[in-house]
Amino acid sequence: MPTTGSIEEQRRAACATREAILKVARRRFSSCGYADVTLRDIAADADVSAALVVKYFGSKEDLFAQASGFENDAEKLLDCELEHLGEHLVRTLLDYHDRTQGDPLVRAVFTSSRPAGASFRDNFESQLVTRLAERLTGPRARLRAELVCSHLMGLGASRLVLRTRAITAEPTEDLVALTAPLIQNWIDNPL
Amino acid sequence: MPTTGSIEEQRRAACATREAILKVARRRFSSCGYADVTLRDIAADADVSAALVVKYFGSKEDLFAQASGFENDAEKLLDCELEHLGEHLVRTLLDYHDRTQGDPLVRAVFTSSRPAGASFRDNFESQLVTRLAERLTGPRARLRAELVCSHLMGLGASRLVLRTRAITAEPTEDLVALTAPLIQNWIDNPL
Repeated sequence: MPTTGSIEEQRRAACATREAILKVARRRFSSCGYADVTLRDIAADADVSAALVVKYFGSKEDLFAQASGFENDAEKLLDCELEHLGEHLVRTLLDYHDRTQGDPLVRAVFTSSRPAGASFRDNFESQLVTRLAERLTGPRARLRAELVCSHLMGLGASRLVLRTRAITAEPTEDLVALTAPLIQNWIDNPL
Repeated sequence: MPTTGSIEEQRRAACATREAILKVARRRFSSCGYADVTLRDIAADADVSAALVVKYFGSKEDLFAQASGFENDAEKLLDCELEHLGEHLVRTLLDYHDRTQGDPLVRAVFTSSRPAGASFRDNFESQLVTRLAERLTGPRARLRAELVCSHLMGLGASRLVLRTRAITAEPTEDLVALTAPLIQNWIDNPL
């Protein structure tokens, strides 16, 4: 019979495995879209059996729904005072790329392109675009928030999906310096 | 026996049908990715039989290859003197959205995310990014060309895939006025 300590250890290990599976699932769904990914691919990436993925998450659709949640990512992206938000957004996104080889905004693009993607699109809008728009002052806050997101999406698609040569090779801080001022401009200035 | 005139008419009709099928195929592949699209969907959109689509284009993979060609679109996008190219790029892309509900850059993102997408990514790079980079003067032309494309991709993804509310509702000329100066800035100014 396992001791309390080992139950706790098992719980922690299961939790770490769940996280690892979610992480590789996000990466796969970001870079390949939904339909071209199999549970077997994800299991292989996470170095576990496909049966374990099913045990923890259910079907591919279920795993996708859990991997596509936007709330945590949106919170991290927006966790900064307005005057430095442009820089924070780009840096957070690029760090996210480096850590996970994934991108929540690019995932949203792939997700919402699916026939059943309307609910994911709604999440993206309510959890990121609308929350950003509510923080902006002055006219046309909604449009400015969407332009910010559009800019970040283009950067993510170039770096992670098309992997265009120069953007991919550019050091994070240099890309931040180049693009953050444009994004900050939508944040600061009413149209 | 048909007269010469009617053969010519048939040829023209076949040509128009081919173009119509390619157009709806581009739209489907732009907004849904590859795997979620069937030949049957495309046939239905074009108001022809699936058998006719197969007769003209072969398999879905074959149709996809023909619909994903980048050359013509890249030529139209780049057909402008450098000093007005920013405006021309945005306007051409937004007009393309309105006419076809498709976007060549977004198609490139969906395409190159596929396991077999490397050759499409190469086309995108050689036909658009590299040709643009070759026209830019001053240092870091390649990076600047990629930033231009990244910007356009984000706009297309917002407008056609995520269909975010304000960007979608914004009149073409207003969106051109808002975004073209940022794109022109990458074109004009060495980093």
